[in-house]
Amino acid sequence: MINIQLSERQEKIIDIVKNDQPITGETIAKHLKLTRATIRPDLAILTMSGILDARPKVGYFYTGKTALSFVSESIRKIKVSEIKSVPVAIDEETSIYDAIVTLFLEDVSTIFVTSNGYLTGVVSRKDFLKNAIGGMDLNKIPVGVIMTRMPNIVTITPDESVLNAAIKLIDHEVDSIPVVEEIKVDEEKKEYKIIGRLSKTNITRLFVELGESN
Amino acid sequence: MINIQLSERQEKIIDIVKNDQPITGETIAKHLKLTRATIRPDLAILTMSGILDARPKVGYFYTGKTALSFVSESIRKIKVSEIKSVPVAIDEETSIYDAIVTLFLEDVSTIFVTSNGYLTGVVSRKDFLKNAIGGMDLNKIPVGVIMTRMPNIVTITPDESVLNAAIKLIDHEVDSIPVVEEIKVDEEKKEYKIIGRLSKTNITRLFVELGESN
Repeated sequence: MINIQLSERQEKIIDIVKNDQPITGETIAKHLKLTRATIRPDLAILTMSGILDARPKVGYFYTGKTALSFVSESIRKIKVSEIKSVPVAIDEETSIYDAIVTLFLEDVSTIFVTSNGYLTGVVSRKDFLKNAIGGMDLNKIPVGVIMTRMPNIVTITPDESVLNAAIKLIDHEVDSIPVVEEIKVDEEKKEYKIIGRLSKTNITRLFVELGESN
Repeated sequence: MINIQLSERQEKIIDIVKNDQPITGETIAKHLKLTRATIRPDLAILTMSGILDARPKVGYFYTGKTALSFVSESIRKIKVSEIKSVPVAIDEETSIYDAIVTLFLEDVSTIFVTSNGYLTGVVSRKDFLKNAIGGMDLNKIPVGVIMTRMPNIVTITPDESVLNAAIKLIDHEVDSIPVVEEIKVDEEKKEYKIIGRLSKTNITRLFVELGESN
């Protein structure tokens, strides 16, 4: 993939095609008071980039694609599975105190909570802080009491785009979301197995990688 | 700016130039068993993109630029001033409890601490949580006691790139950094005025904008 700054003449050609499409190369050249041979490289560039479309014996069309945004195209292609981290999960019966210890040991912003191995809740650093200053006995109360419980949890699957994950992080104002796999338990019931986490840290790290890549 | 996927023939031309530079268009065409006219658009694209350089009466050179990364180029151009948020700052004498209340009211992950209006420290949600479970009297101890103190604080200026800010966030393992302006107090002493904050949330929001732009 290469990048080209369009020349003034190429911009003019785009305008001519926009106004008079379909239009032959010969006619475009006449508009510009140039020969067909002179503008051949320009037309080649404009069709190769997808800005113009050429149909034999008809002429050139404007495709409606302006300057393609390669940035957004590249970003959209990256999948959650490519950048996800290992999840940190504890059982619902774990005490809040032990959950906080796990949070510090694993150095994560969010802990996922399970029952029988399936996702049932999420607790963030913010939730812990709120309860820690509340004066309750953190050793006696299980984390299941203070967690955000399913189905009020936003999740993502490994095949979804990182862009989608980032949108969820922003829209739901959370720092991290569980990457899950849907398991059909029986005809009516489905559960989620936690297979990763995707956080604002992952997005920031990816941003650095994209910015440093050459 | 447009993007073009190189054709097989263009890739071949690059290889030929790499091996035999400087080389005339005529000679390149001969290598490919094509006419000079046929490869004219290819050479135009390769020189316009900066991959090849053409010198009159000498021939084509390979510049060493491979496929330019437009993504990284675009990312590097964005400045901290373009996406920074309003900072949340409190005085060193504020109690830890009041600081935590501010953290929740402003819904930020990190609070900046000042003395005489200048940056002296930073406290994160993590610092607060650590102290909240420690059993100390949060109402009596000022935030200055538990904060990370200058000069152990990573800062950024509004003119620096967002990429640089992201690198600092990752390298120093923090969620948010103060955007500062350097003030010369006297010949020897300089202080920092806090004029913004840049967090992983800002980076994630920017990532979404880049991914959604078209």
